[in-house]
Amino acid sequence: MSFDNNIPTTFPDLAPRGPSGDLLLAAERAKTSFDVQKLSEFMYTKEWLERMDKVLQVIESEPAFDKTNRYFESREAKIASGLRKDKRVVELIKEHNWDETDSQIAYFLFDQSTPFTLHYNMFIPTLRSQTTDEQKKLFLEPALKHHIIGCYAQTELGHGSNVQGIETTATYIPETNEFEIHSPTLTAAKWWIGGLGTAATHAIVMARLITDGKDYGPHPFCVHIRSLEDHRPLPGITVGDIGPKFGFNSVDNGFIMFDHYRVPHISFLAKYSKVKPGTGEYIKPPNAKLSYGTMVFVRANIVMGSRYAMAKAATIAVRYSAVRQQFVDAANPRKWDKKVIETPVIDYTMQQYRLLPTVAAAYACFFTGREMIRLYNLNQEAMQQGNFDLLADLHASSSGLKSLTTTMAIDAIEDCRRACGGHGYSMFSGLGMFYQDYLPNVTWEGDNYILTQQTARYLLKTLRNVVAGKAVPSEYNPTITYLTQFLQNPKAKCPATAPSDFLNPELILSAFGFRAAYGIAQVAEQIDRQGRSWNSMLVEISRISKAHCQFVLVRNFIVTLQNDPSLAAPEMRPIVKVLRSMATLFALHTMEKELAEFVLSGYISSEQTKMLKDQVISLLEQIRPDAVALVDAFALPDYYLHSALGRYDGKVYEAMTKMAEREPLNHTQVVAGYEECIKPLISQGKAAGRWKEDGSLQIAKL
Amino acid sequence: MSFDNNIPTTFPDLAPRGPSGDLLLAAERAKTSFDVQKLSEFMYTKEWLERMDKVLQVIESEPAFDKTNRYFESREAKIASGLRKDKRVVELIKEHNWDETDSQIAYFLFDQSTPFTLHYNMFIPTLRSQTTDEQKKLFLEPALKHHIIGCYAQTELGHGSNVQGIETTATYIPETNEFEIHSPTLTAAKWWIGGLGTAATHAIVMARLITDGKDYGPHPFCVHIRSLEDHRPLPGITVGDIGPKFGFNSVDNGFIMFDHYRVPHISFLAKYSKVKPGTGEYIKPPNAKLSYGTMVFVRANIVMGSRYAMAKAATIAVRYSAVRQQFVDAANPRKWDKKVIETPVIDYTMQQYRLLPTVAAAYACFFTGREMIRLYNLNQEAMQQGNFDLLADLHASSSGLKSLTTTMAIDAIEDCRRACGGHGYSMFSGLGMFYQDYLPNVTWEGDNYILTQQTARYLLKTLRNVVAGKAVPSEYNPTITYLTQFLQNPKAKCPATAPSDFLNPELILSAFGFRAAYGIAQVAEQIDRQGRSWNSMLVEISRISKAHCQFVLVRNFIVTLQNDPSLAAPEMRPIVKVLRSMATLFALHTMEKELAEFVLSGYISSEQTKMLKDQVISLLEQIRPDAVALVDAFALPDYYLHSALGRYDGKVYEAMTKMAEREPLNHTQVVAGYEECIKPLISQGKAAGRWKEDGSLQIAKL
Repeated sequence: MSFDNNIPTTFPDLAPRGPSGDLLLAAERAKTSFDVQKLSEFMYTKEWLERMDKVLQVIESEPAFDKTNRYFESREAKIASGLRKDKRVVELIKEHNWDETDSQIAYFLFDQSTPFTLHYNMFIPTLRSQTTDEQKKLFLEPALKHHIIGCYAQTELGHGSNVQGIETTATYIPETNEFEIHSPTLTAAKWWIGGLGTAATHAIVMARLITDGKDYGPHPFCVHIRSLEDHRPLPGITVGDIGPKFGFNSVDNGFIMFDHYRVPHISFLAKYSKVKPGTGEYIKPPNAKLSYGTMVFVRANIVMGSRYAMAKAATIAVRYSAVRQQFVDAANPRKWDKKVIETPVIDYTMQQYRLLPTVAAAYACFFTGREMIRLYNLNQEAMQQGNFDLLADLHASSSGLKSLTTTMAIDAIEDCRRACGGHGYSMFSGLGMFYQDYLPNVTWEGDNYILTQQTARYLLKTLRNVVAGKAVPSEYNPTITYLTQFLQNPKAKCPATAPSDFLNPELILSAFGFRAAYGIAQVAEQIDRQGRSWNSMLVEISRISKAHCQFVLVRNFIVTLQNDPSLAAPEMRPIVKVLRSMATLFALHTMEKELAEFVLSGYISSEQTKMLKDQVISLLEQIRPDAVALVDAFALPDYYLHSALGRYDGKVYEAMTKMAEREPLNHTQVVAGYEECIKPLISQGKAAGRWKEDGSLQIAKL
Repeated sequence: MSFDNNIPTTFPDLAPRGPSGDLLLAAERAKTSFDVQKLSEFMYTKEWLERMDKVLQVIESEPAFDKTNRYFESREAKIASGLRKDKRVVELIKEHNWDETDSQIAYFLFDQSTPFTLHYNMFIPTLRSQTTDEQKKLFLEPALKHHIIGCYAQTELGHGSNVQGIETTATYIPETNEFEIHSPTLTAAKWWIGGLGTAATHAIVMARLITDGKDYGPHPFCVHIRSLEDHRPLPGITVGDIGPKFGFNSVDNGFIMFDHYRVPHISFLAKYSKVKPGTGEYIKPPNAKLSYGTMVFVRANIVMGSRYAMAKAATIAVRYSAVRQQFVDAANPRKWDKKVIETPVIDYTMQQYRLLPTVAAAYACFFTGREMIRLYNLNQEAMQQGNFDLLADLHASSSGLKSLTTTMAIDAIEDCRRACGGHGYSMFSGLGMFYQDYLPNVTWEGDNYILTQQTARYLLKTLRNVVAGKAVPSEYNPTITYLTQFLQNPKAKCPATAPSDFLNPELILSAFGFRAAYGIAQVAEQIDRQGRSWNSMLVEISRISKAHCQFVLVRNFIVTLQNDPSLAAPEMRPIVKVLRSMATLFALHTMEKELAEFVLSGYISSEQTKMLKDQVISLLEQIRPDAVALVDAFALPDYYLHSALGRYDGKVYEAMTKMAEREPLNHTQVVAGYEECIKPLISQGKAAGRWKEDGSLQIAKL
């Protein structure tokens, strides 16, 4: 090629066909019925929003936090830029005197995990909760100073959910007061361990403790794995990265195998159980239930995370739907400057039906996440005083809620992506990689299917207690309340006689409670009386967990709107009004999705389902003018969204073309493979004399 | 670093904990009730299977067709290797004397689209169907010889589904007998055009034809865009790649903008409409309906494709579920060599419930795809003779079936991926990239939501005709038949009195027909009598399309099993038996998913739903022993699957570790970013004197 090939492709300086996105979004915002800023402050507090702004200003100008290349990076580039950010955060903490909340906000806004993520999220918390004071000095202090970098190695190649089945052993050697960590088979390889692939110098290793001639099952060890001198794997260790994943490729999920690898006695994390030096005698932990509290906290945060996920997806899809125009709606033509324009897709009922329930679900998960954290704190206090009463209900609900809300969120991301039409498939939508990166939430901290069994077990036990008169209704346990009500009147009917009756919160709660109780009673009947096995009932079992958790989501939403003192002020009235619509839409849309169960329970009649559907359509119409404002209130900055479609200013097409200009393939005029692969084929046509000197087709000749 | 960093990480030579995958799968295959090879031959024919084997042997040893690096390639590498394969195929066709079927099989087995894919799938077919003889010489002949490479440019940045809304213009210039192609705005940029980003020298451009002072709407032009001399964009053209997508990154989807770009008169594809040279007079095409036939064919192929997608996903998930063991099932412990082992997950009802209906759905789509192709051929013959009777029903059903089956397939891929637990998230599962690459099927050839409207319009029209006595039942139109039956007895009830009654094919078909008809009648009632707008009914409208198409899928499956002569031979009995179970499972599982509609139609009672659910569980138990054989019968070779989890030999863990060894991050002992990002942090600990010469922690000192 004799010409200069290194000329990047740029778009001509043209505007999109009007009305442009910024004007369309401004028109949407002019219709808002409530104070967006006030709603944001209600959810986040003013202080937190100001803090977010401050952190945002810092990182937006930091090269290590630049997102420009996010959608173009190869796997290796992702790891390299992740490590650079990890290092830069440590410096920023010093430079700006950031506290933990500030750096959490920075990570939240950057919205991509890194090789150090598990150091912060699992290594340090485990060291905090499972170590003796001596171990804190040895492991936790250097970890906090980044003198060692850690990960948490539990899952094995052959063992995921079933922790009891792991194969790695840690055998106590009395002679040297050491443990010998060993991987006896290929399936014993630790696998999926975030941070282990490239970064970690240390790992919390879950291994079967063998001492005193006995196998005591999985216990945690803090194991030194890579040299602090040159980062090479220490002798006896095989360690590396497990390779590309569907998402999460900015994290170096790794594997590790141990070949009779010796660690000192102090590596055994000994806050709860202990192994006596010399004799190897095993001393049991005092109360295994204590650790359940932490799981509740982790799951409450996952529920809150599901809310951010839905809020992000909905923000992008709703804003873009107000900008994207398709077809002239002949029955109801949209006009602009007195001329008919193509209708913004958000005006189509189908699009509202696809998107607005997700907006409502994001709000629902916010209220339940908040309630879970409140209950977690209540329970921690109670447990300190030896009271474990709250724990069972809280732990059981948290399993099912984690399962339900993460499934809701992942479905919402994908639904929103598809609702963006073709451009949703572009990485520039911000929804594709987001879906891929969010996905592990449905598997980690308990597979979503398996978790529902924990909730269901509790529900069945509670039902048996209520039947036996061993549990009475209390305001702290709504489960007992709805089960009791159901047992008192198992033939109850929904009193609705008109669509608007479905706006009544009491009616909604009764319906959700009745349907959950009916399902639980059916399962109990089949297991307890008809002798059906647990395994053969797993489908129904996951359904009752879901039914219960949908009740909890609806209840927390409704109850908070009724009771939260900060919503009582007169200036909050428009906000309460729109949130009530959100709560009702969430509840009724959920009922519609699960209609079969409501109908089969005998509570809802065929006639009432028509009213219900009509009421959902009415709600969509009613909420429609506030659609953009409701996602604006999530207060998610453009930097966080990193989406051409979801920009606050609506300049969708300008952003799509700007981002396309950055595509590496567009940095040259002619693709690299041309000479090798395309030219030889085309040249044969040239030999056939098909074209002119200037390269155009020889039309005249044919 | 003074050591040699370029030592790749390799796994120790250990076996997985037994029983290993190959033994577990062999045990599964020993349980099979039918002849797997015979079932494969029934579906594909023996000839086709032999041909596939022959092509497979060729490409498996071709470097250009090597899949080893598939999951590690960056975007640019994908394009480069795609172009290499495109070139190599042209050579292989000559070397092995391949015909079109052979090269289609090669592309199918390679299972990744390339820059030339749209040349074959859209450019050449369009040239075949839309050109005059003169144009065939000028464009089609060189295209077939790869002397020019083409693409199909319809969608614009601002216009997807609404083709009528595209902005690109082609204005006839009588003075020079040329057309001037122009992009008036940024949103007029052609966007998403496969093959345009790097490869194409020509494009079929859909542009609004303006001639004779009038705008005649979108028409196709064959436009020369890159020089045949050096591949540079021709003057007046801005062309490039639209950037990374959620999937399909091996294709160079591109954009193009035209700045008053002149093309000769012959560029206008003139098989149907014409523009008179000189005067510019527009001559209308004879019958627009002719092109509907092609759409049916394309959609039939998409339905067949959905079947491959489900078959592939199910093959991987079912085989892996027979290998993967989790938990000891205390109620029903699995034994091996007289010892209790963890239970293969396929033994859990929940896993069967998640997977076996997908196996059944793959078979269902096979039978419907086959039927669509048969009807397409029938219709082509009929249309040749001026008979358009079949077309309306066929075209309408094909829209909804495309929508339904691609949605089923994409959901199935993701369900199967999640059913593989943690390892499903690894790219080595073969399901992640597959999901991403399959996704465009739900959007292209008509967005799945929009397509359902075409089907629904036809259903409503047919109902009105039946009511008006203008349509009578015939064996060629089952729609009219079920609508007529419903109108004759709109209060009919399902006669089932025991779970086994749901095995009756007539009962199943009646239920599906009744439920579809009920839904159609409800929508007609609301639109025709209550005056509801089409827009406000879109949710219900998509539901009736789905209900109808589910009826079609169930019917084609059942009817073929009853009537296909090649199934009548006695040695086919075990196959017919297992296929009947598949048909019933598909039907009953679909009923269960859509239970609300069946119950609300009044046809199925609450008691009957319990029977239905029991029958589904019984069917799962009954099919369980044949699960692996049923996916083996899809005859998808390991090369095609390219999955560590779905291998025929079940050596899952060996494959996972072998593939992980290829991860580029594992080609060195220490990650590239160590010196820059990790060492400076850790060194501060060194300064604090925390460790010994050999790099291990200074435990004694603390």
